[in-house]
Amino acid sequence: MSRQLHLGAFLMGVGHHASAWRAAGVDPANLTRPAYYKALAQTAERGKFDFVFFADRQALSDRYGNNLQTSVRYLTSPRLDPVALLGLLAGATSHIGLAATASTTFNDPFALARTFATLDHLSEGRIGWNIVTSTNDGEALNYSRDPILDHEVRYRRAREFVELALGLWDSWEDDVFIHDKEKGEFANPDRVHYLNHSGEFFDVRGPLNVPRSPQGRPVLIQAGSSDTGQDFAASVADVIFTAQPDLAKAQAFYSNVNQRLLAQGREAGSLKIMPGVMPFVGRSREEAQERFAELEEKVHPLAGLALLSDSMNHDLSIYPLDEPLPDVKDIRGNQSRFKLVQEVSQREGLTLRQLGKRFGGSRSHRVLAGTASSIADDLEHWFTSHACDGFNVMPPYLPDSLTDFVDQVVPELQRRGLFRREYQGTTLREHLGLTRPSSRFSQKN
Amino acid sequence: MSRQLHLGAFLMGVGHHASAWRAAGVDPANLTRPAYYKALAQTAERGKFDFVFFADRQALSDRYGNNLQTSVRYLTSPRLDPVALLGLLAGATSHIGLAATASTTFNDPFALARTFATLDHLSEGRIGWNIVTSTNDGEALNYSRDPILDHEVRYRRAREFVELALGLWDSWEDDVFIHDKEKGEFANPDRVHYLNHSGEFFDVRGPLNVPRSPQGRPVLIQAGSSDTGQDFAASVADVIFTAQPDLAKAQAFYSNVNQRLLAQGREAGSLKIMPGVMPFVGRSREEAQERFAELEEKVHPLAGLALLSDSMNHDLSIYPLDEPLPDVKDIRGNQSRFKLVQEVSQREGLTLRQLGKRFGGSRSHRVLAGTASSIADDLEHWFTSHACDGFNVMPPYLPDSLTDFVDQVVPELQRRGLFRREYQGTTLREHLGLTRPSSRFSQKN
Repeated sequence: MSRQLHLGAFLMGVGHHASAWRAAGVDPANLTRPAYYKALAQTAERGKFDFVFFADRQALSDRYGNNLQTSVRYLTSPRLDPVALLGLLAGATSHIGLAATASTTFNDPFALARTFATLDHLSEGRIGWNIVTSTNDGEALNYSRDPILDHEVRYRRAREFVELALGLWDSWEDDVFIHDKEKGEFANPDRVHYLNHSGEFFDVRGPLNVPRSPQGRPVLIQAGSSDTGQDFAASVADVIFTAQPDLAKAQAFYSNVNQRLLAQGREAGSLKIMPGVMPFVGRSREEAQERFAELEEKVHPLAGLALLSDSMNHDLSIYPLDEPLPDVKDIRGNQSRFKLVQEVSQREGLTLRQLGKRFGGSRSHRVLAGTASSIADDLEHWFTSHACDGFNVMPPYLPDSLTDFVDQVVPELQRRGLFRREYQGTTLREHLGLTRPSSRFSQKN
Repeated sequence: MSRQLHLGAFLMGVGHHASAWRAAGVDPANLTRPAYYKALAQTAERGKFDFVFFADRQALSDRYGNNLQTSVRYLTSPRLDPVALLGLLAGATSHIGLAATASTTFNDPFALARTFATLDHLSEGRIGWNIVTSTNDGEALNYSRDPILDHEVRYRRAREFVELALGLWDSWEDDVFIHDKEKGEFANPDRVHYLNHSGEFFDVRGPLNVPRSPQGRPVLIQAGSSDTGQDFAASVADVIFTAQPDLAKAQAFYSNVNQRLLAQGREAGSLKIMPGVMPFVGRSREEAQERFAELEEKVHPLAGLALLSDSMNHDLSIYPLDEPLPDVKDIRGNQSRFKLVQEVSQREGLTLRQLGKRFGGSRSHRVLAGTASSIADDLEHWFTSHACDGFNVMPPYLPDSLTDFVDQVVPELQRRGLFRREYQGTTLREHLGLTRPSSRFSQKN
């Protein structure tokens, strides 16, 4: 079989687009409904996706105006705990992988390792962990912490955290159980190991009290795009998420990360690179583009500015709404992002109100608006041009844009021999073509 | 309708009895299987139980011999994360309450409040949280902590933790959503509140980023039996678990806790007191008692001693196996427990090997071995004698002893008009006859 692409369904609230909840066919009350999440995962499973994926955020945004007024009024601000959601979905699906984000800054390695090992058992080997280091001050304020750690410190903590989690997942070897009812011998203690880890951030004795899970350990996902982030991903991750605006940059990224991978002594192909795409599928290109334009048009200017303030980490409420973004030096926040937006504002003569609309909707993700066949063309082109190993599909409004992708784009990819018609394995590692790691302790016996 | 009793199904691994895994009909590999847990919860739901309940422990025991040899070889030592399990069971059941233990010593209040609020949404109002403060040094060693906090400090932390969690669950009022697609207004920010909590242990700004859940907040369960523990339960809990060896003591406890409840200004009946019972149901009393005796006989002496060492917090491996427990003064660990065991040992001339068997199996829980009718007699007697509001049923081996209880004892209780034939409500609060609390902020608008 030729090289096959991998698909993740990145499910966010009622859709990734800022106006998703205002679209026809979208019920904003779905945000907290179990039946809704079950149906989404089942649709993605029907489409033979490798996995569904949920991001995380542990605070409401109040960057715009330094209060909750704008974000609560205009955004779909609530978010469920994505890890708790995986438990529900483990029971509602049978094959599809289930991945969620959890922070190495706000969690404890023992608790996280135990929860994900449990979920890997409960899903019979379908769990993925998206490792993030958290960059949001609002989250720190909910966790009795000082504002967020320095970038390098966060990554040092993340490395120690992940190393520890790997150790805990290895602490029970395979083939540990004896289950001799006659003699009363349950398990072999020589295959269960203390870690006695003592490091810069953590002291953890171990072992875990959950046996080695079906995948050995969950699939590890990473989305770091900084140099440190890419190195981290190349050293430990199985999957890397990335936002790539155009083919050339994606190819450069793909080649760069793969070089880092080999430099780490890892096998080619053992890290799947999956850029995000936001698909609008129509019967014609015009219909798809209209659908996209409609959603863009529905972005409330303040919704857009709240999202933009957030991504800049800079409060835009202090500037007049109906004038262009002024030329400010030495702003607090993300200076390069500020400068980019400012350039667009000046060049196109856009006021703040217009900027909110422009940047708030799809938030710089790569939008594919077209027919199933033209979208498949684009995905195939990227895939065969060695720009990626697959895609993290970000449905803009739910459930319809996921259903459209599953019913129209997936069959097109299958016809072209690019994507599975049936799951070949039962674990997420098997879907991704990754081997099951053995415990670091298993050689010693 | 007359006063109705409440039933919890306290599910532990493959059964509460130390020899459960060696019993006929018990498959020890079930410990990590999702289908097994789903079936158990569905059986309890068929029996119209108020809830299923899972305890927690975050370390393997190595008190006996200060190594893992005995506990891993002879005990069913693995434990899944019970909170992750609730997500799975939320999807596998429709009415029964779902409760799990989580520690105020090892968790962060924001994370815990968010996870339980999420689960309350995903179960549509069926979640309970058993609040524990943790007493186990092995757990502390897995959490980068010094050995366990002093009793009073642990409870101070627990009080602040729970107060914060309650605040976070209140931080979104009911009726917050506007969902006006035309105007683009999603929610009313005047009904979402910062907490700005700054206390002895935690600084948490809030609000939660999960909307108020179906029950307003999860049902709170507590099991503290110390004075501090009872006061804590009387001030915040909805349910109290307790181990009561005989009727008189149970009556005293019931009356005492209810007095504390009223002293706190809470309404009579707003705290359900549920002692544990371990039922062995047989077609005859002899059959039931034989079944119990068989399991007791199967307790491996070292399994018993490992469990006993654990409950004493004292390493019994240093004493000769075939002699009585010597008269040691000033032992490390639980002195009163040591003294009790020592007295039994001296009085009955039991060697350590025999003590392990005696104390390890049912571990001092109240065993009811008899016919369905005689067990129902006992439960009815306790209930009508105002010794309790119901029972936390601890099936000794699974799934059979739960199935027996559901098929034989529950119908007997129903015939006597003591227990529901159908669920009357849909939330755990409704099953328990508890009101839904309103948000502390809801008066202000």
